[in-house]
Amino acid sequence: MIINGKDCRTIRLGIDKKSVEIIDQRFLPHEFVTEKIKTVEEMAAAIKDMHLRGAPLIGAAAGYGMYLACLNGKNRKDFDQYITDSANFLESTRPTAINLKCGISRALKEIIKGKNINDKIEIALKTAVKIADEDVEINRNIGLNGVKLIEDIAKNKKGKTVEILTHCNAGALATVDIGTATASIYEAFKRKIDIHVWVEETRPRNQGKLTAWELQQAGVPNTVICDNTGGHLMQTGKVDIVIVGTDRTTSNGDVANKIGTYQKALAANDNNVPFYVALPSPTIDWTLSSGKQIPIEERTGEEVLYIEGYLNKKIKNVRLFAEKTKALNFGFDVTPARLITGLITEKGICKPDELEKFFGKNFV
Amino acid sequence: MIINGKDCRTIRLGIDKKSVEIIDQRFLPHEFVTEKIKTVEEMAAAIKDMHLRGAPLIGAAAGYGMYLACLNGKNRKDFDQYITDSANFLESTRPTAINLKCGISRALKEIIKGKNINDKIEIALKTAVKIADEDVEINRNIGLNGVKLIEDIAKNKKGKTVEILTHCNAGALATVDIGTATASIYEAFKRKIDIHVWVEETRPRNQGKLTAWELQQAGVPNTVICDNTGGHLMQTGKVDIVIVGTDRTTSNGDVANKIGTYQKALAANDNNVPFYVALPSPTIDWTLSSGKQIPIEERTGEEVLYIEGYLNKKIKNVRLFAEKTKALNFGFDVTPARLITGLITEKGICKPDELEKFFGKNFV
Repeated sequence: MIINGKDCRTIRLGIDKKSVEIIDQRFLPHEFVTEKIKTVEEMAAAIKDMHLRGAPLIGAAAGYGMYLACLNGKNRKDFDQYITDSANFLESTRPTAINLKCGISRALKEIIKGKNINDKIEIALKTAVKIADEDVEINRNIGLNGVKLIEDIAKNKKGKTVEILTHCNAGALATVDIGTATASIYEAFKRKIDIHVWVEETRPRNQGKLTAWELQQAGVPNTVICDNTGGHLMQTGKVDIVIVGTDRTTSNGDVANKIGTYQKALAANDNNVPFYVALPSPTIDWTLSSGKQIPIEERTGEEVLYIEGYLNKKIKNVRLFAEKTKALNFGFDVTPARLITGLITEKGICKPDELEKFFGKNFV
Repeated sequence: MIINGKDCRTIRLGIDKKSVEIIDQRFLPHEFVTEKIKTVEEMAAAIKDMHLRGAPLIGAAAGYGMYLACLNGKNRKDFDQYITDSANFLESTRPTAINLKCGISRALKEIIKGKNINDKIEIALKTAVKIADEDVEINRNIGLNGVKLIEDIAKNKKGKTVEILTHCNAGALATVDIGTATASIYEAFKRKIDIHVWVEETRPRNQGKLTAWELQQAGVPNTVICDNTGGHLMQTGKVDIVIVGTDRTTSNGDVANKIGTYQKALAANDNNVPFYVALPSPTIDWTLSSGKQIPIEERTGEEVLYIEGYLNKKIKNVRLFAEKTKALNFGFDVTPARLITGLITEKGICKPDELEKFFGKNFV
């Protein structure tokens, strides 16, 4: 990811090797702030309070969080118990993203193999770095696969701009680098295909501001629209393809993603606009056979009733509704497989109902 | 409409009879401010800058605006020319709402009959009051017709709360009184049916804050949701009926309404949730035979990039996106007749494709 002209990742080991550095995304796009995280509790808070977000990045944060837990517990007699407790604590922060669960259990499984505490700490770090590096590699391959779709549209449009719509931020900021939904976009831009991205605002947390910002940093032409506008743009022929990310995909190809994705899939379906989900395989939950089984995170209504904006070079939290107004706030919805044209994975593109066949039964 | 316990209208003649009093809705729900409008130019600004909004209220404002034009032009030699110019000027403020156009031409048609300038002024006032009174009467009848739908659902649910979803503000604040989409809701509440309203935020201008506020003032239970959430609520069985308003409906039953309505109709259709449009007959544009012919207002992107909220007892305008981010902002979209269960009119409920038959060819 390019930030202020420099190549950069969203999460990395601190120079002291005893801390983890992340971008505190709560200040974006207004201020670029990094945060030094020293304990697993701080990492849990960073995940819960969304200093960082996005399923793949949360997966990497889980790995680094477990490394910090090992470091923090180093001198404890109940080291193993502390590690288990930390794992449970970390996992309780966000219920929908499968990557959190997977990252933690993968780390635990490796840590357990260590001969002593120092060995366990070393293993925890190696695992964290591996999870992060794998994410980057997966996204690179998603980009190489997805770019073909954009190239085909470009050919059909004979040089006219390819119009891509995305919801939420499944960008570099939601991953360790490159992004999932944005992977094909960045690859197309690298190949000098004429593209333009419609960035949906994505209320209540307006992750669209992150997508617009990171696309802008990379030089990719983009325009923000309200979540209400995507359907109208599709109706009036202004969208060639929709590409979104996913927080959890079940074995039948149902996709849980940021709230509002389902409505976008309906509009795409109604207007014959291809609707693709960029799907890194760690986001697949093979233990669930239907999207209806995915727990949907309910967040505080305050996220709807108040909003953060920039005023006089400061971030301000303003109230949008009357004092006594109540709000309900679900973080995700489920888009049924029937509305999805294809899944762009690191292994290639497949139909949602062929997911199991595509990855092979023994993939997990 | 009940405001602070008192019965009230959104627009009325000033006590001096030389001005018009409106609620300046830009300060709602945080502050209740009324505005005294003395000239047709001020009325045009009030419409354009959305001190008042909502198709029926704009229709009434058009009538009162023409009255002010007559008053303002009283001593001009070019009185008739001034009236025509004022009409054109008023009409240029908002392109989508048919009521604006109709209100103005109706006023013009009547004013022209006046024997002299004083007579014309008197006619203009009578016409304005008539347009306003008719709106209230129409909405009362829409309520009486629509409440039957809610009563039927209540019967089927055997005492469980009837869950109604609405988009934008097609409430009392969008009309002279009672509202269109809210008419059935207020009538159901009056009849002590157990109801609850999901109020969609309706970005970018968050008219949901008005709906939540006026429902709250009337004591009707309601909860605000983001525009992204309506689809998910319908998917999970939490919505029994959708009722929205309309800014212009064409003779084939296509409905132009606030941007995002189309996505809601898609979600209702996908989940077998009845989708109704409250349609006062003056909102029907018999001159157009398809929604595709309706001009869709494009408003400034600033409305997306900035938002108004309340902070330290003051209304503040904060920036939501990065400084260089661009936005596109359409005010309305068109919901095709095929997605609409029925139109609740003052004459009764009809299928969208039966609109012409229902009103009779000679209705206009």
